[in-house]
Amino acid sequence: MAEQEPKPVLVRERIDVCELDRARMSLMNPALIEQKKKERTIDENAKPLIEMALREGFETVWDRYEMQQPSCKYCEAGLSCARCTMGPCRIIPPHRIRGVCGADADLIVSRNLLDMIATGSAAHSDHGRDIVETLYLVGMGTATDYGIADEDKLRLLAQEFGIANDKKSAKEIAALLGRAMLEEYGMTRNTLQCLSRAPKATQEIWDAAGITPRGIDREVVDSMHRVQMGVGADYTNILLQGLRCSLSDGWGGSMLGTDVSDVLFGTPSIRESKVNLAVLKKDHVNIAVHGHNPVLSEMVVKAVTDPELVALAKKNGAAGINLVGLCCTGSELLMRKGVPMSGNHLNQELVIMTGALEAMIVDYQCIFPSLPRTASCFHTLIVSTSPKAKIPGSYFFDFSPDKGLVTAKAIVRMAVENFKNRNPARVNIPGSPVPLMTGFSNEAIKKALGGSFKPLINLIAAGKIRGAVGIVGCNNPHVKHDYGHVELTKALIKKNILCVETGCAAIASGKAGLLMPSAAAMAGDDLRAVCESLKIPPVLHMGSCVDNSRILVLAAELGNALNVPIHKLPIAGAAPEWYSQKAVSIGAYFVASGVYTVLGVMPHISGSPAVVSLLTDGLKGAVNANFAVEPDPVKAADLIADHIEKKRTGLGI
Amino acid sequence: MAEQEPKPVLVRERIDVCELDRARMSLMNPALIEQKKKERTIDENAKPLIEMALREGFETVWDRYEMQQPSCKYCEAGLSCARCTMGPCRIIPPHRIRGVCGADADLIVSRNLLDMIATGSAAHSDHGRDIVETLYLVGMGTATDYGIADEDKLRLLAQEFGIANDKKSAKEIAALLGRAMLEEYGMTRNTLQCLSRAPKATQEIWDAAGITPRGIDREVVDSMHRVQMGVGADYTNILLQGLRCSLSDGWGGSMLGTDVSDVLFGTPSIRESKVNLAVLKKDHVNIAVHGHNPVLSEMVVKAVTDPELVALAKKNGAAGINLVGLCCTGSELLMRKGVPMSGNHLNQELVIMTGALEAMIVDYQCIFPSLPRTASCFHTLIVSTSPKAKIPGSYFFDFSPDKGLVTAKAIVRMAVENFKNRNPARVNIPGSPVPLMTGFSNEAIKKALGGSFKPLINLIAAGKIRGAVGIVGCNNPHVKHDYGHVELTKALIKKNILCVETGCAAIASGKAGLLMPSAAAMAGDDLRAVCESLKIPPVLHMGSCVDNSRILVLAAELGNALNVPIHKLPIAGAAPEWYSQKAVSIGAYFVASGVYTVLGVMPHISGSPAVVSLLTDGLKGAVNANFAVEPDPVKAADLIADHIEKKRTGLGI
Repeated sequence: MAEQEPKPVLVRERIDVCELDRARMSLMNPALIEQKKKERTIDENAKPLIEMALREGFETVWDRYEMQQPSCKYCEAGLSCARCTMGPCRIIPPHRIRGVCGADADLIVSRNLLDMIATGSAAHSDHGRDIVETLYLVGMGTATDYGIADEDKLRLLAQEFGIANDKKSAKEIAALLGRAMLEEYGMTRNTLQCLSRAPKATQEIWDAAGITPRGIDREVVDSMHRVQMGVGADYTNILLQGLRCSLSDGWGGSMLGTDVSDVLFGTPSIRESKVNLAVLKKDHVNIAVHGHNPVLSEMVVKAVTDPELVALAKKNGAAGINLVGLCCTGSELLMRKGVPMSGNHLNQELVIMTGALEAMIVDYQCIFPSLPRTASCFHTLIVSTSPKAKIPGSYFFDFSPDKGLVTAKAIVRMAVENFKNRNPARVNIPGSPVPLMTGFSNEAIKKALGGSFKPLINLIAAGKIRGAVGIVGCNNPHVKHDYGHVELTKALIKKNILCVETGCAAIASGKAGLLMPSAAAMAGDDLRAVCESLKIPPVLHMGSCVDNSRILVLAAELGNALNVPIHKLPIAGAAPEWYSQKAVSIGAYFVASGVYTVLGVMPHISGSPAVVSLLTDGLKGAVNANFAVEPDPVKAADLIADHIEKKRTGLGI
Repeated sequence: MAEQEPKPVLVRERIDVCELDRARMSLMNPALIEQKKKERTIDENAKPLIEMALREGFETVWDRYEMQQPSCKYCEAGLSCARCTMGPCRIIPPHRIRGVCGADADLIVSRNLLDMIATGSAAHSDHGRDIVETLYLVGMGTATDYGIADEDKLRLLAQEFGIANDKKSAKEIAALLGRAMLEEYGMTRNTLQCLSRAPKATQEIWDAAGITPRGIDREVVDSMHRVQMGVGADYTNILLQGLRCSLSDGWGGSMLGTDVSDVLFGTPSIRESKVNLAVLKKDHVNIAVHGHNPVLSEMVVKAVTDPELVALAKKNGAAGINLVGLCCTGSELLMRKGVPMSGNHLNQELVIMTGALEAMIVDYQCIFPSLPRTASCFHTLIVSTSPKAKIPGSYFFDFSPDKGLVTAKAIVRMAVENFKNRNPARVNIPGSPVPLMTGFSNEAIKKALGGSFKPLINLIAAGKIRGAVGIVGCNNPHVKHDYGHVELTKALIKKNILCVETGCAAIASGKAGLLMPSAAAMAGDDLRAVCESLKIPPVLHMGSCVDNSRILVLAAELGNALNVPIHKLPIAGAAPEWYSQKAVSIGAYFVASGVYTVLGVMPHISGSPAVVSLLTDGLKGAVNANFAVEPDPVKAADLIADHIEKKRTGLGI
């Protein structure tokens, strides 16, 4: 079997640069190291590794952040434009107030922001496409390593997409539904099916604002068309297209990504697992999956239980194979399979620095391109798998669904064989894991509530739960690692506000123990009582970043149940440590859907007071919601609580 | 009738800022003005207006260019990245060699370039989509102001797209073909029909390099996905996707745009017209159409001959209505209708400064967003028409094909009624127009050659014509206006190399008299003899920028006739004064198709020697063609001539 397995290609060349870094960073003294360690993170398991990295001169994201200071004030304000070669241009008042083409600050800032939204939307939706294509291939019988894990959900979706399915097999439906969903990316429908999940009144708001998306790919392309010199010229019009593009992500690509992942790999149900860097095992072959796409990671889950590979691991002196997740692909596996989670965005280098990681398998999104540099200081192999995301210095396997398992096995074999290269003296797995509860899909939440959201609505109406907040997004070295997430979450649950979390936000809460029912003790009295009676934590892990679509569906179902548009609900969004373009798209579709959203990090827009004002106020006129920016998590919690109380008053509850 | 006409909306607010500019620029002295006038352009009709603008303090693109100096060296080198909020970052060796995410110079530069290609490809392809949608609406009977102007071409295209059409009406075919072409933007075909126009060997090169596009929109979205942090990491892989994305423009969106425009509005045939700012008429209501999309401008052509509107113009004291073109929408009308052409990219402000322009009607792309500022110093109305490109200070009509003519009439009426606001003392139309020959579609060229390209091939084989060069692209204030185009063209025809030109390049040649058969006198002896015998100019105007697809088809037909891949032909491309993202996409699809392409302006890539080396050399390994950058047009002509002679040797001719 091994001989049929695909072989990797080394991308570009082997990277081996440790010594350089050590030399550069040798000026660290113990006091400075101590100080930096405290400034950089609140993750206790991360601290010893950050200290080690500083001491030994292994570059981390925080070092690069420091290296990049002072940063360009024009870029930070969004006032730089190098989009065409009449420039590059910068807006520098009072004299340089227009670029060569005549664009002013408002236009340059809004165009840059639209590019970010289009990038993020493209990333999510292209991920969704990969999942939908896999469903289609399952239906067509060419992705035989995959099956239908949740046939009920498949049939429900088929119904929603107008596919009669009483007499068809799951496979037949998969082909038809996959095809129908691919049409959502195309040009012939001119609307998106899942938009109709939203309350009618919310759909009407989109229509009135002219931001109802017409096709998933089309909105990205339309956005990029407007970025071209001499197209988009009015910042309001540009940003409305940004909202439209983001809606095609949230209610389009991401929502298909989530739903079809559930169909293929199982709709998450409530389960326990554990989290932090200490999920690595000293005596096991450790493999981390990092990225976003479960089409890869679900095959790795299968491969690590392959008896031949387990036997090989044991033959090589390991006690077994230990698979851990990282970032969103980790959340996918955690939600559906309970695979332990090693950390979030800013943990990705530190997992390697445990010295106990044989391989990090990545697909795409949020992968530091310098990971092979980090790995070169240890024995870890970085294995890239997506043709879209070849990484110099990584070993590339051309992964595709039609040869999913055999590729996954080849990768796991490579990891197992790398165990012998581990240097036991370098192994440093700090502390011990924290338990967490996960798997809070809408289906799972409903089930826990006895079959419908009615009890939740009653609790909100009765004021036992004041409202709900979706806390989402990344880590960002501009913010002390996990501090923004954890402090905001703690402050909100104390105010009897339920938190639903995804992505790196959820993992931060997990590491802080907030995803366990015992965290109810940190909540306000009312919320604590609710959690204790339902045996749930006050903070619910709803999945990966793509799964923010679950939060949209939750909001939609609450709105439909109460017969109100989403913007009238006592809910909010927050992204305390966001960094990525995807997060901008998420924030935009939250706001476009009517959800007030508080950012902890300022986007690159401060150069245009008009754009700032539109986003933080003016958008209310179009979508009845707006952004706020508040780096202090305690103040952010106050803003959110005020908003929720206003919405409660509006509903008369 | 007038009462049913749509009404415009003023976008944002009226701009009226002349005085400010006058104050700012009053420091000009006569000697400096004289010097700047000479430095800025070789367009003799432009010079008096540039002088007037400098004297009176009207801001032009050249002033803004000067205002933006010194420009940011990091942006210019492509080394800035503000794509995510872990940054902004700059690469500043020797210490700042990676961004916060770990991206190095190669990655940052290539990612920025991919964004440019995706932007340009999106712009062209979205333009093509608008045309294809119009065809579809004609077929469905909802765009009644439009018809099928070239039914032969419609039926040929239908055949190519596999639509049996013997017994169907033109309208039925339009619906079916429109629908089939919309599928090219979608997800179900996974290839593009028109790729099969290329020589088989060229298609095989694309397959081997993994750059065969799968869908027009998909390649833009895939590209933008790779721009997201943590996806694309290897510059070669990123730039190969750039080539794929550009191919989906050249052989996809642009090619559909050209072909369907021919179907709807007529395939161009050889005709004469005239060019430069002096096509404006002192005693007429002057209207300029500026932008790219003939769906708008063809309706304006109809509207200006409306007897009621002509009568109204006369009633208002004008001798009639004079429609002129500008930039690519001008080329569309020039090629098909012989509408006089007022100028190219850097003429767009000067047309207004003649004081004789009642309205400038714009759609999208290459429209300076500050045009309403320019117009505010005169009486000109800027009328915007695309929901994608509302311009602050413009009057916006929501133009769509289902109400094309009535909207065009309303706009023309607005222009006619604006005639009374013209200040005769301000009217300054310098010089007189230059005649030109236009309309060189492939169909027209073939017809002139007696029905096939065979005589052209024979002339090339015999060495009477050494080869052919596509000179394309924009103006850019980094280059003296028109100098790059005209000098390169002159140098090439002197070397007996036939020039085929589009867009602003062709207009520059037109203004310089190179588009007339009499220009044969400037050509080398052999080419002169050929031109004289065929009564054609040595420089052929093939259309707008989207019509660069005509050049691809020409190359493909030559390759197919000789049974060689495109890269073996004695042809080349050049973009001496390019500025826009679309031009990057054009350059990329030229090179990806096997056409050596010389740029007169350096892209923002100098910060990565690896990217520079890949584009100027390494790509040969993948697509047998490469870029060169040579600002000196005479040296560029030498590079091109050398290349052509090498290719001739390769073919044994």
